[in-house]
Formats: sequence, structure tokens, C-alpha cells
Amino acid sequence: MEYVNVAVDAMGGDNAPGAIVKGAVEAAVENDNIKIFLTGPEAVVKAELDKAGYSGDRIVILDAPEIITNDEAPVMAIRRKKNSSIVVGLKAVKDGTCDAFVSAGSTGAVLVGGQLVAGRIKGVERTPLAPMIPTATGMTLLIDCGANVDARPSHLVQFAKMGAVYMENIVGVKNPKVGILNIGAEEEKGNQLVKDTFPLLQNCPDINFVGSVEARDVPYGAVDVVVCEAFAGNVLLKTYEGVGGVLLKEVKKGITSTFKSKIGALLIKDALKKTLKKFTADEYGGAPMLGLNGLVVKTHGNATEKEVKNSIKQCILFKQQHISDKISEKINLTI
Amino acid sequence: MEYVNVAVDAMGGDNAPGAIVKGAVEAAVENDNIKIFLTGPEAVVKAELDKAGYSGDRIVILDAPEIITNDEAPVMAIRRKKNSSIVVGLKAVKDGTCDAFVSAGSTGAVLVGGQLVAGRIKGVERTPLAPMIPTATGMTLLIDCGANVDARPSHLVQFAKMGAVYMENIVGVKNPKVGILNIGAEEEKGNQLVKDTFPLLQNCPDINFVGSVEARDVPYGAVDVVVCEAFAGNVLLKTYEGVGGVLLKEVKKGITSTFKSKIGALLIKDALKKTLKKFTADEYGGAPMLGLNGLVVKTHGNATEKEVKNSIKQCILFKQQHISDKISEKINLTI
Repeated sequence: MEYVNVAVDAMGGDNAPGAIVKGAVEAAVENDNIKIFLTGPEAVVKAELDKAGYSGDRIVILDAPEIITNDEAPVMAIRRKKNSSIVVGLKAVKDGTCDAFVSAGSTGAVLVGGQLVAGRIKGVERTPLAPMIPTATGMTLLIDCGANVDARPSHLVQFAKMGAVYMENIVGVKNPKVGILNIGAEEEKGNQLVKDTFPLLQNCPDINFVGSVEARDVPYGAVDVVVCEAFAGNVLLKTYEGVGGVLLKEVKKGITSTFKSKIGALLIKDALKKTLKKFTADEYGGAPMLGLNGLVVKTHGNATEKEVKNSIKQCILFKQQHISDKISEKINLTI
Repeated sequence: MEYVNVAVDAMGGDNAPGAIVKGAVEAAVENDNIKIFLTGPEAVVKAELDKAGYSGDRIVILDAPEIITNDEAPVMAIRRKKNSSIVVGLKAVKDGTCDAFVSAGSTGAVLVGGQLVAGRIKGVERTPLAPMIPTATGMTLLIDCGANVDARPSHLVQFAKMGAVYMENIVGVKNPKVGILNIGAEEEKGNQLVKDTFPLLQNCPDINFVGSVEARDVPYGAVDVVVCEAFAGNVLLKTYEGVGGVLLKEVKKGITSTFKSKIGALLIKDALKKTLKKFTADEYGGAPMLGLNGLVVKTHGNATEKEVKNSIKQCILFKQQHISDKISEKINLTI
């Protein structure tokens, strides 16, 4: 059997190493075709692995005694800490040992490391971070939310193509609708970047470009792929998380504020939980960084074992569907 | 008594002229010191005024037979339709007949008209649109969400000053916390605009600049004034509205999905309503456009009579607190 080999940063995120190792074990137990390479200080990871009760041979440890923290400057950290759990994992992707790398560690370090260590697909100008966000009708890919701000029009065109490949092959949306994030639906609206990019996207015969999409319509599922510059994408993503969090907290507070409503709250609990599950991050795994040689998945800093497991599972389809090849083809055919 | 004279666009928005005229009547009835100048085709507005049962002398009509629609190009529309309800209202501000103008009409036309017709305060480079958004702890001013994208650092500095004046004097927040919208809390993060603006804000002794604020923290009420370029501000604002709308719809659907939860839903209804009222747009009136000679308030296109009333009431404080003078002073003293 050909395995999908996934390097996993055992030391990244708030719940590391415990939740990470547990998530990895669950992924390995549930999927026969996965082999996992945990990166981190060998003794520490070994202890967690024992705790999790895994004794099979499809999880191995790649010793990485160094750790990159969230407050280290990313470029410097990647360059200096060659034996960190992030760099060791990315190197495993670079040299072909692994097909993918999953980390809940420093976003900046993972993004910088992805480019510096794993390397870009030939022809790809920038490697966007493309989280999936839940909508009223399903999921939408938001591309780019990464660290590369001040993008150029040609970057956005590549994002559109890569996003379309991902949604079509990983999520299974046929001919995904691609929209450019804008501040109005009319063609003449927008900042200079959007105005310059718009006609380029209209001239892409290989994507289903539907024009501008306003941030207001994204949660309703107006399009499948939202193309945007990373600063605006980050604002959209973070507002999404913030408003969702506050609103649910306030609703909870509100419905338990009186005796009468407390009883009501008990009665609606199950139904409400089911609804909100759709909007929970850990159901969806992490955000793929696209355009690299291999796949890098960035999960939330507070990723649970469930999110880690789902992020690892994401890598299976990515390999089976040959996403990197398809991206390479789409980018290089038409430029 | 010195009246606060407010021009109101009777023909702007989805619910015009009915809701607009009703809102104006309510504002006049509730506030003895207001005089309202309704702009629109005289016969139409007169009929609505009769319908609303107002017979006092503190509402008059400024005849404006033309109407600017949402799909007209703003600059062209303002230049050509000199007798439109928007231009007539703005002219009344320009010539001193009115202190303020309230419109639920085309955002583009109101913003362009504000600059072209009412005119900027001397020294003000750009006139931002600054909506107030509800947060877990109160309200936050988001400045700029207007049509002037691709701002320069000096614009953002002025936005910070104007926003601080508004929050301090209109909302009553002492020494309001001003943050710049960014994609990370660290000083070295951000796009070029943010990086260039950051040190300028740090060097403003007359505002309480607290550094970067991430979009995620805005709904929690992290700062009182969020300074941003209009494209990013618009994305934040629209995402706010979109996510709020979808989430509440889903929650409603969820809690009425089973028999048990339906009974629960009845019991929590009152408590939930009270909570959500805080997050409803019509409680807060409209978004002020700052830095103009006089005040221009843009209310939502779907403004209800309550929002119209509250938008008109907003103008009282604006005049009483001499906001335009204070902005002029702050801008011109320190540049």
C-alpha cells in the first residue's frame, strides 16, 4: 500500500504536545493508509505517544529538540532553528519523506518556513493561506489570509486558480463560483488592486469568475472561492471569528438571564448545539497553504485533538487528488 | 430658542418616503429644539406629512423634484441633478440654512455630494464615513468605511483625531482608546500603509493611541475607535452585518427545529430579544461623515423610522458639542 506520509508538529499550539499527539493517534487508528511523522524533542513526544497508548508502526518520531515560539520573528527563527519541530517537519516535505506537514504553531513561522524550506511550485509567485469558512449553505474558501500583504493583480489571479482547483478536487464543488472581495457589486467600485485584477479574472477561461462579492454576502454562501489580498482576507476571517464568538456568548448570556428563559435554554440546548456545530472550527481541519511543493496545513493555535485529526485527514485527499500537479498545470498552462 | 436645523432626504432608501417622513415627525415631536427640512418633490412629501398627521411649524419642505437612484454613477449624478433631494439637502448645509443632512439614499452619492457640495473643513484631507458598531461592552467607531479607498498615512492620522473627537464628545467616552486595524498585534506586522502610519500615530500626543487591534477583538470592544483604510473598514463592517444576520437566522432555525426546542424557544424569546436589541442597527442612528462643514449622516438603505429618528437626534449633540469646530482645531493645530 502506498502511504500518505504526514509530518505533524507535535510542539505547535496551545494544547501541544498532548492534544496534537492524541489527534495524530486518532488519525492513524482511523486511517490505514496514513503514516505520521511527529516532530519534536524525542523523549517528550515518546512520553505523549505512550500516554496515548499507541504501539503501532505507523507513527514515528523525527527528533526536533528546538521549538519556535509565537513571539519570535518568523524569518529569523526559521533560519536559526534548523532543528525546530517546524523546520524538521518542512524539511521532511522538501526531501520527499512526507507529502504534507501539519502545524498549530506560529503562523508566521509556518508561512515563512513553507516558502523558504518546502519551496514553491515552479511558476507560483506567492503561496496563499486559504482557510475554509462555514456559511449558511456549506463552506467557502477564503484565499489569501496569509502574511503576504500588498499583493499584485497577477498574484490574485493565481489565487483564483489555486482556490478553484482546491474547491473542485478536495471539497467536490463542481465548477466553483469564484468572486473577488469588493466594497460594492458594481464593476467600477473597489480599490486600485481590485480594479486592476477584475479584467484579468474576466479573461480567465478556466475559472468560473462571477465578479465582485461583498463581505456581507460571504456568510450566506454567495460564492465558493473568495479571492482577496491577505490584509482584507485576514480582516474578514478575524471579524468572522470575533462576531461569531461574541454573538454566541451574548445569546447564551441572554437566554439564561431569567428563571423562565433558563428552563427554555435547557429545552433548546440539543437543537442549538447541532446548529452551531456547523460553525465550529474543529470540524473543518486547518487552512491549507497552497502553491507549495507538497501541502502545508496551518491549524488554529488552540486546535483540539479533533481539529488536528481532521487536518491530518485533509492531507489524504490532497495527495490522492494530486492537487500540487493540478495547480502546477493550471498555473503554468495559462501564463 | 436656537434650533438645530436638520435637512432630511425624504426620498432616500428602501422605505422612502413613508418611513423617512414618519421618523422625521417623531423626531420633531420628541425634540422641541429641532427644525426639519424635508427634501423631495413637494406634493409627494406634503402628502406623506399629512398622512403622518403633523401640522406644526417645525417641519418644512424644500422642494426637490429630482431623485438620485442607487445605480447612478455618484459624481455624475451629483453634478447633473442639482434639484435632487440629496443635492438640495447638502446645499442647505453649505449655505448655512441647516446644520446637518440625513440621508438613507445612495451611499456613493451622499459621500461624493458631501465633499463636492457641503465641502470639507479647512485642513481636512479626506472626509471619512464613520459608522458605530455594537460590541460586547458598548459601541466602537469604525473610521473609515467610505468610498475613498487607498488612503495615505496622513489621512489615517486625521481619521484618528476626528474619531477621537466624535467618541469623546458625542458618545461621552473619556480619552477614547484608538487602535489601528491590523493583522497582528506586533508592531512589525501589517501592510505598508499600517507600517507607515503606526509611528505617526505614536507621535500624536493628543490621542490615546493603543497600537494595533485585530479584527477579531473589535466585537469584544477592545478599542473605542478603529482607524482603517476604507476598503478594510468596509470589509469589517459588512462581515459584521453578514455574520450577525446569518448566525441569528441559523440560531432561530435551530431552536425551532424540534417540538421540545420549540417550547424552549417560546420561553427564551423575551430574554433573547432584549440581548439582540443591543446589536440592532436602528438603535444607533446612522454613520456620520466627518470633516465636513456641517454634519452629514448616512443611514442604512433599509432604515426604519426609528433609525431615521435616531439619526436626526444625533445631529442635536453634534451641533451642541461644536464637533466641527473641535475637529478643525485638532486637525489644524497639530499639522
